[in-house]
Amino acid sequence: MPGAKLAWEQIEATQNAANKQAGPRLVPGRSIPVPNTVSPSLQTTIAAPYRVPAWDANPKDAADWKTLIRTLGDETAAATREAQEKLGVSMEPTVIDGVKAFILTPKVIAPENRNRLLVNVHGGGFVYNPGVAGTQEPTSMAAYGGFKILSIDYRMPPDHPYPAGLDDCLKVWRATVETNDPKKLGLFGSSAGAGMLLAMSLRAKEEGLPLPAALAVGTPWVDLTETGDTYRTNEWLDNILVSYRGYLGRAAQLYANGNDLKDPHVSPIYGDFHGFPPTVLTSGTRDLLLSLTVLTHRKLRRSNVEAELNVFEGMSHISFVLNPYAPESREVFTDWARFFDKHLGH
Amino acid sequence: MPGAKLAWEQIEATQNAANKQAGPRLVPGRSIPVPNTVSPSLQTTIAAPYRVPAWDANPKDAADWKTLIRTLGDETAAATREAQEKLGVSMEPTVIDGVKAFILTPKVIAPENRNRLLVNVHGGGFVYNPGVAGTQEPTSMAAYGGFKILSIDYRMPPDHPYPAGLDDCLKVWRATVETNDPKKLGLFGSSAGAGMLLAMSLRAKEEGLPLPAALAVGTPWVDLTETGDTYRTNEWLDNILVSYRGYLGRAAQLYANGNDLKDPHVSPIYGDFHGFPPTVLTSGTRDLLLSLTVLTHRKLRRSNVEAELNVFEGMSHISFVLNPYAPESREVFTDWARFFDKHLGH
Repeated sequence: MPGAKLAWEQIEATQNAANKQAGPRLVPGRSIPVPNTVSPSLQTTIAAPYRVPAWDANPKDAADWKTLIRTLGDETAAATREAQEKLGVSMEPTVIDGVKAFILTPKVIAPENRNRLLVNVHGGGFVYNPGVAGTQEPTSMAAYGGFKILSIDYRMPPDHPYPAGLDDCLKVWRATVETNDPKKLGLFGSSAGAGMLLAMSLRAKEEGLPLPAALAVGTPWVDLTETGDTYRTNEWLDNILVSYRGYLGRAAQLYANGNDLKDPHVSPIYGDFHGFPPTVLTSGTRDLLLSLTVLTHRKLRRSNVEAELNVFEGMSHISFVLNPYAPESREVFTDWARFFDKHLGH
Repeated sequence: MPGAKLAWEQIEATQNAANKQAGPRLVPGRSIPVPNTVSPSLQTTIAAPYRVPAWDANPKDAADWKTLIRTLGDETAAATREAQEKLGVSMEPTVIDGVKAFILTPKVIAPENRNRLLVNVHGGGFVYNPGVAGTQEPTSMAAYGGFKILSIDYRMPPDHPYPAGLDDCLKVWRATVETNDPKKLGLFGSSAGAGMLLAMSLRAKEEGLPLPAALAVGTPWVDLTETGDTYRTNEWLDNILVSYRGYLGRAAQLYANGNDLKDPHVSPIYGDFHGFPPTVLTSGTRDLLLSLTVLTHRKLRRSNVEAELNVFEGMSHISFVLNPYAPESREVFTDWARFFDKHLGH
């Protein structure tokens, strides 16, 4: 095709001219195909359109936020109940020291996990996924990992901004380590849930509480400012978050409620990771938070923490949570289960 | 700035319209800043212009290829000699069973490494970096890791296409395991060097030769076809390779010389990794071969091989080889040294 060749030569010349001096990188607009290097199920997830209006939602006031949170929460709760049905996971609500939570139990608890418990902190930008909607990820972990799970339904904005949710998580953690051997406890979560659990770990360390035996950290939102190269390199490519300059930046403001976004209890990447337990981290090549994931991995290792990184081909932010049926999602959770099995006592 | 806001709303509307159906992802042309999340030295490497004409070199015949290979080789050899001087690494040429090679020795061999040897296969798309130019990466590894290194100066196209280079590597490996305890041997390399060492490991397994105790694999060119999502998502962003549709695709043809690009000895991702030794892999978030790195990592783990992944913020393809002075590059090699120390006998 001479036309195609001409088009190529044009783009080549334009790009060479635009990138012939040191400075920012100029990239051309283009169409990026769905990769054939992932399962058909994950291909469908990668091909999916942007989540509109969620990614660029711009609620004007508390009432607007509540409407959006309820609408999205209802959708996610429905998908979660369906997954619980399909994957054979049962769920019971509970209250721990005044904080709402759920106990998730798989059809079969693996023999090695009978005396173990995983604690989960759900994601959703610190504002989404109240109630059942917050149990999507622990449903997959219970089913694929064969663990009993306690998932914290912490308070959230607009009514309860920082530090309400973190305080709730600490209350549950304090109660849990009073009645469980911390060596048999693991802690996991993704996105804001991963940011929260790392902030929890910082607080626990400061308050002299025991830490769990291992952490599983999915694509952690550990810096609420727009920091990290993939916020720009994967902008418009990640079909879940799409851009920091959508609801993500707005959720950061709503959650922090005037507190410094670089406070380590808000953005734990600024905290001290020394003494943290072994940690497994997971992200995807299209993830807007790939940089935050690899920066967290490096910081853990520089702090002498055993830290293991997994990056999945083609995944956007939390693709493995949103599509619990792809073989790659199952691989994420079985990897985490293997990691917990290696590090938790019996 | 109302103008900026308007520009944002326009791009938001355009992008939402372009991505409202399932299918390929449409991304806009844009300027991507140099990230502030890496060292000043690495920032300079990230800001650097495209490597012109190297990335899109299109030699017309063997003589053209030789001129290009010599020009680039002279540049890289000069940079390598400077690094050897600065980092205190000495080099001696040698010949092993008729194959040229170099012995690299750091000023101080770490006490735990006195009886150990690392074998290196250099990168350069299977066509670049003959002679001294091929010792850039092992210079850093010798200096930062405190290891003695044997680097293979295997034959290359246009005169010696596949399988000449691989045959040379196997000859050196056979001779090396005859005079060394394989438990005290490690094997490392990046890019085409990593592809070659994985092909070597497949061949060694098939021929009943012992494998080394551990592998270090930098951003491996394990598939010479254009396979992997980051060939497109990181196209124009990676300032070293830039695009498969430059010299990379041409080097693949020149090297394979009519052989099937999906032959596992050419593209080892199609081979059987069962029985491979523990492997550490390294890539960067802007690397055109990030997908091949993470796909290799997953395949190793699915083959029950202990495999550890490291991804560095902002790095393009082999940034850590081309800039041996960035703290992050030092971290790559000290990480590999720690991995070898963990897995090699004394």
